[in-house]
Amino acid sequence: MRTPLKGACVIGQSGGPTSVINASAYGVIRTALDNEHITAVYGAAHGIKGVLDGKLYDMQQEDASELALLLNTPSSELGSCRYKIADPDVDDTDYKRIQEIFEQYDVRYFFYNGGNDSMDTCNKISRYFAKSGYECHVMGVPKTIDNDLFGTDHCPGYGSAARYVATSLMEVYKDARVYDTGQITIVEVMGRHAGWLTASAALATHFGCGPDLIYVPEVAFDMDQFLTDVTAIYKEQGNALVAVSEGIHDKDGKLIAEYGASGEASKDAFGHAQLGGLAATLAGIVKEKTGAKVRGIELSLLQRAAAHLASQTDIDEAFLAGKTAVEAAVAGETGKMVGFERDMSSGSYVCKTVLLPLEKVANFEKKLPLEWITPAGNGITKEFIDYALPLIQGEPNRAQESSLPRFARLKKVLAK
Amino acid sequence: MRTPLKGACVIGQSGGPTSVINASAYGVIRTALDNEHITAVYGAAHGIKGVLDGKLYDMQQEDASELALLLNTPSSELGSCRYKIADPDVDDTDYKRIQEIFEQYDVRYFFYNGGNDSMDTCNKISRYFAKSGYECHVMGVPKTIDNDLFGTDHCPGYGSAARYVATSLMEVYKDARVYDTGQITIVEVMGRHAGWLTASAALATHFGCGPDLIYVPEVAFDMDQFLTDVTAIYKEQGNALVAVSEGIHDKDGKLIAEYGASGEASKDAFGHAQLGGLAATLAGIVKEKTGAKVRGIELSLLQRAAAHLASQTDIDEAFLAGKTAVEAAVAGETGKMVGFERDMSSGSYVCKTVLLPLEKVANFEKKLPLEWITPAGNGITKEFIDYALPLIQGEPNRAQESSLPRFARLKKVLAK
Repeated sequence: MRTPLKGACVIGQSGGPTSVINASAYGVIRTALDNEHITAVYGAAHGIKGVLDGKLYDMQQEDASELALLLNTPSSELGSCRYKIADPDVDDTDYKRIQEIFEQYDVRYFFYNGGNDSMDTCNKISRYFAKSGYECHVMGVPKTIDNDLFGTDHCPGYGSAARYVATSLMEVYKDARVYDTGQITIVEVMGRHAGWLTASAALATHFGCGPDLIYVPEVAFDMDQFLTDVTAIYKEQGNALVAVSEGIHDKDGKLIAEYGASGEASKDAFGHAQLGGLAATLAGIVKEKTGAKVRGIELSLLQRAAAHLASQTDIDEAFLAGKTAVEAAVAGETGKMVGFERDMSSGSYVCKTVLLPLEKVANFEKKLPLEWITPAGNGITKEFIDYALPLIQGEPNRAQESSLPRFARLKKVLAK
Repeated sequence: MRTPLKGACVIGQSGGPTSVINASAYGVIRTALDNEHITAVYGAAHGIKGVLDGKLYDMQQEDASELALLLNTPSSELGSCRYKIADPDVDDTDYKRIQEIFEQYDVRYFFYNGGNDSMDTCNKISRYFAKSGYECHVMGVPKTIDNDLFGTDHCPGYGSAARYVATSLMEVYKDARVYDTGQITIVEVMGRHAGWLTASAALATHFGCGPDLIYVPEVAFDMDQFLTDVTAIYKEQGNALVAVSEGIHDKDGKLIAEYGASGEASKDAFGHAQLGGLAATLAGIVKEKTGAKVRGIELSLLQRAAAHLASQTDIDEAFLAGKTAVEAAVAGETGKMVGFERDMSSGSYVCKTVLLPLEKVANFEKKLPLEWITPAGNGITKEFIDYALPLIQGEPNRAQESSLPRFARLKKVLAK
């Protein structure tokens, strides 16, 4: 084994946050701080934007106990960005700047914590360094509530969001059928292209308190069929609960969120289309069709920020992903993303980390398998339950202050 | 002391459910089942509607362990209603029917678990029995997330909803300021006339992760002033978080929720305007004014069903309210609601139950004291924090099954 590179490391976070992305950051930061070959640990403010701006926090300045609270602190504590970096073969301005900053701080390890787009950024930086000859190991640390990263069994962030969605749906189920007068309730879950998170609503149904109908973007949504289905259930039960992915669309690819009630977008007093998503739109259409009391609920940011309902399995794996990235990078790996491989040979859930080439991960979206969607396109099969259930296990033992969350309070001292 | 009445009891639940209304029902059911003077315990399906329909569940048929799970089961397990009962002096049809059913089942104790309107129902029934001479003790068991019941320090249901609102606001705060590009986030909290629940967002602010601006229905909302305030904060911080009660209105009494969308607000059976969509309406207006990225979030049913975030203090007090109602009724009380009186003389929170005449409680709404609202009308004072903080204390030790809630599963066997 060759001598590990000696130098500083940078960790950045990017894309939409999750409940456990900070657990991954902590996996990187804690492991890096404890590693003899890593001379300094910097957190980039707002991902790659912080690198470009030379805005790096010195993680050595933080109290160890505050850093540990990152395990239960939602959202991206270092700040996130949605900065789209150019192709280095077309425009290498940003890359030159990144290398300049890295040289200045003697950065030899770069960890990027994000989803699809972030793995693309990571991959491009890795490619650039390979070409420029700047010696720096680049590793991707996955996160996404969408669970759509290619090549890995699942992504940190997903299990916690799935636990939130399933728990909330069970609670809403209880509430939404309390009256004798009946109600149709439509709950909108995040997921533009992949239905993984919305499918987790099926966990609630599996335990007897969940949606009657579930729609995901993997199959085209037929409005007439939906109205027929929901009306039949409403007539039979006196109520109906529906979960929909924000990205459901018709067979022509048109988003259902863009269908206005009665086919027209409702306008407000100023004459512009009402803000408000798919749940409100569908609720309007169903109300008009059925005359029933209809309520649309959008889980919105709550579903990706609900650290209080995180899955401990997810927290542990998120931390492990960060830790593994550091250990692999120090061992000489670069241009890889940490992924997970499930081993069910023992009959119970065991998961190990694997390293995946970034170019194979970047820009691919892993969809929910079509065979896990019922033939009618309005439900989820038992195969999905078996897949998802292990991922939501474990109640986090989170720090509280007066029975409210005690999140990490970092000093965020800028590196000189 | 005179000999207690011997006979059956009926418990009914009414109005919008809460996370802990079933804890109160359990307080009634458990105490009644264990009481030697109570010969049978019936749960009315959908409140007073179940009595009128003669649809009573025999609680003796339930497993004790399932009944105990009611402590952590949200929503009204017996079913709720919003049935508006007539004034007995005007139309006594319903009352005759109630008495007929009660005579049939030898019901001598009636417990009604609900908010303002339910206490009104309870009071009318009590008055009718006083007039008709039918011997039956009638007791109100309070619940409401709105915390607007008169004469009591607070209401069971409020502390849990407040803990949910404060926790969710802290999580949303973390998420909503993650990007370098800025965002204004507007969170809509339930509360038509009273701002108690929205004020609980100030608990999040108290712990450093909460709204910059809070608006409640107790003071008139001035759109221009709001836009000035939110723009100033957004310019200064790069983001802003706002919490609003669904019932905020302008100085002429017009609901802000009606500033946007077209149609007339539909009314419920009690003539309350059906609200919803304020967050989306305000988001549209703020976006138009500021050009910022704006997100509206409605906490919707989640805030009153989130038993997983209930306050143990609230659960304990909800149970106590039910238990006290039974004990008081057996001791000869009637026409009363169980309330709470706070004693801070020891320097820490101690709460005891009191009995309040129903006619003093029914139909009055207790508003948030104006002196607990900042002079600018856009924030909440420290006095409120001191009031609310004790009510949200304690993490519930709730039953789970595969890391999802294990709610009570009652058999609901109809009484013969």
